[in-house]
Amino acid sequence: MLKISERGQSMPPSPIRKLVPFAEAARKRGTHVFHLNIGQPDVETPPSILEAVRKADIRVLEYSHSAGNESYRRKLVQYYKKAGIHLGIEDIIITTGGSEAIMFGFFTCLNDGDEVIIPEPYYANYNGFAVQAGVKVVPITSYIETGFALPPISDFEKIITPKTKAIIICNPNNPTGYLYSREEMEALKEICLKHDLYLFSDEAYREFCYDGEYISALHLQGLEEHVVLMDTISKRYSACGARIGAFITKNKAVLSAAMKFAQARLSPPGLAQILGEAAIDLPETYFDEPKREYQERRDLMVKRLQEMPGVFCPTPGGAFYAIARLPIDDADTFCQWLLESFSLKKNTVMLAPASGFYGTAGLGKDEVRLAYVLNKQDLSDAMDCLEEALKIYPGKVSIHQATNADVIA
Amino acid sequence: MLKISERGQSMPPSPIRKLVPFAEAARKRGTHVFHLNIGQPDVETPPSILEAVRKADIRVLEYSHSAGNESYRRKLVQYYKKAGIHLGIEDIIITTGGSEAIMFGFFTCLNDGDEVIIPEPYYANYNGFAVQAGVKVVPITSYIETGFALPPISDFEKIITPKTKAIIICNPNNPTGYLYSREEMEALKEICLKHDLYLFSDEAYREFCYDGEYISALHLQGLEEHVVLMDTISKRYSACGARIGAFITKNKAVLSAAMKFAQARLSPPGLAQILGEAAIDLPETYFDEPKREYQERRDLMVKRLQEMPGVFCPTPGGAFYAIARLPIDDADTFCQWLLESFSLKKNTVMLAPASGFYGTAGLGKDEVRLAYVLNKQDLSDAMDCLEEALKIYPGKVSIHQATNADVIA
Repeated sequence: MLKISERGQSMPPSPIRKLVPFAEAARKRGTHVFHLNIGQPDVETPPSILEAVRKADIRVLEYSHSAGNESYRRKLVQYYKKAGIHLGIEDIIITTGGSEAIMFGFFTCLNDGDEVIIPEPYYANYNGFAVQAGVKVVPITSYIETGFALPPISDFEKIITPKTKAIIICNPNNPTGYLYSREEMEALKEICLKHDLYLFSDEAYREFCYDGEYISALHLQGLEEHVVLMDTISKRYSACGARIGAFITKNKAVLSAAMKFAQARLSPPGLAQILGEAAIDLPETYFDEPKREYQERRDLMVKRLQEMPGVFCPTPGGAFYAIARLPIDDADTFCQWLLESFSLKKNTVMLAPASGFYGTAGLGKDEVRLAYVLNKQDLSDAMDCLEEALKIYPGKVSIHQATNADVIA
Repeated sequence: MLKISERGQSMPPSPIRKLVPFAEAARKRGTHVFHLNIGQPDVETPPSILEAVRKADIRVLEYSHSAGNESYRRKLVQYYKKAGIHLGIEDIIITTGGSEAIMFGFFTCLNDGDEVIIPEPYYANYNGFAVQAGVKVVPITSYIETGFALPPISDFEKIITPKTKAIIICNPNNPTGYLYSREEMEALKEICLKHDLYLFSDEAYREFCYDGEYISALHLQGLEEHVVLMDTISKRYSACGARIGAFITKNKAVLSAAMKFAQARLSPPGLAQILGEAAIDLPETYFDEPKREYQERRDLMVKRLQEMPGVFCPTPGGAFYAIARLPIDDADTFCQWLLESFSLKKNTVMLAPASGFYGTAGLGKDEVRLAYVLNKQDLSDAMDCLEEALKIYPGKVSIHQATNADVIA
């Protein structure tokens, strides 16, 4: 009998998408669904970068260089320089979204059976890429009580084995919104140097830091050979559908091996490279407006959450996500109930159960991730829904260990 | 010490690209290089499909469905129907080029250590995808003397083991241009049914068949559950840089597992999906012109090759490639010599040594692949170069077993 591969069987389905049929049913019943479940911003894609695609003079849409157009890579060198990251064009491979950059990292640096440590909760698709590469994800728990700060180095030391080859961070973090401090980044550097580990750094949300300083993994002096930076224009320019990212490393052996994977798939998307290249020419002030907008949304949403009885939500320092602990029995059940059985003024809200972002079974059962990707009015209406839902949800529970006051103090 | 993964080390570099530095050096010396080494057509991308991208009303360039836009998949159902392939939209996942479709096939259907049989010479990037998936390519030799016809089924039977899980064909073939006959396709069907193998069918060149009938793997009645069709718009619409392909199967378990890989990478390129969708609306007659053009180029090139003393080149039935055996010591040396040491009227020609398309070491040493992707004047000038080069190349040899007459007879 024909069989599906072991990888195909153990590949996890998207934890975010499993609620989609319930959202579709809600819509069919005439209920409007506020989507706080996915990181798809409603911010306008800069018209000038779409215009650059329209204006491009293309007779034959040819393969580009496997590392991406040289003109684009030259521009990216300028972009990163402004972020304090000093690169040559030979350090950059343009990828099909951040996803492909992550895959290139796994395939280039990790063997079947190797282990990667990832602070949990973490971006769920790392699991999928790990299955593809035969790599074992070893989660290290960060806690909502500390706002999802980096776990202490002693916790890392406990789980490092001879199979451990890399640590993955996402900074600022999806799904927690946590922004790693200089001290935390330095601690990561020390442990990577001590144990000879790669540091895979997913920096998709670099421009969206509201409190504190942004430290790139490539700012860490002396760690250059260990760092693989995985990047994407998806969130930066609200261009998720373009599928343009970058695989960046100063480690020449890693880059040269990654180039072979890049050559096998020929080239990254051509039209979208034009868009990405044009984005580098946006004025310096471009990020002011979306950043201010996201910060206001964060402030609005987190304040509303913190005011709800029994809800605990540390204030995230960056990206456009927050994780909240709710006074509920089970977030999967609750999120489905919101779509199936609840509405307020013909509205409801779709959230992502946080359990899908934890590698350790049983964690995050009463937590949800909220993406503040909607405008303030929608966000406010969505919070009205959540507030009302928490009053009447049959699986409501009342006791929690931490309160917002604990963290604010 | 930080290490590159075993996959990263054993990943083959592109056999086509290794000559690139020599071509660049030739250009710098002022020599024009006719590129017959890669399948990058000079045919114009249909202006109307680029115009569709320009006209698209996009406020936010959002993620698409992980299987691709539903509107595009609906159109593809129509496209395939015209090719005699009857699909529902649920049988199709839009991919990032044909490359991703091939990867999804490997990851979904094959385990680490499994074997796939591929008639050689074959598309060299299959090797790279096999390394990524930990799969062993078992080549089965097809011979220039028979025009690269499918090897006899008895040859397949000899190399099938319990580890064999799939056969890969490319039809019409890259790199040989061979078009499989109905009898050959039926033979493949029988062997796949008998040994419970998947048939991965790469049909990138479907529209470019000049002699004989095109048979899709999905035309084979009773084999539907075994077939994974890997497709791309790259060559069809001269849109290689778009990076749009398709993973197609009637096997629901395979499709559903492949969808998990598709979800992990979120979505295929958005702008290029608009282009792909517009291509389905091209008039029925659209292919007449590029097909006629390619056929004339084939006729011109193959005739010139067959007239050169000591050159043997079977006439390919489809795609836009031919393999020729040359009266030379070593094709790698010869192709490099063409770029480094030869010019005729300030021109030279770049060819792909065929050894890179064989899985069996030592085969194809005196063969080259030529892609007839240039206009007839350039192609004719390129043939002038080759003809002259073969007269003066220091590593010229004179004896060959087969002659064109053998095959024409």
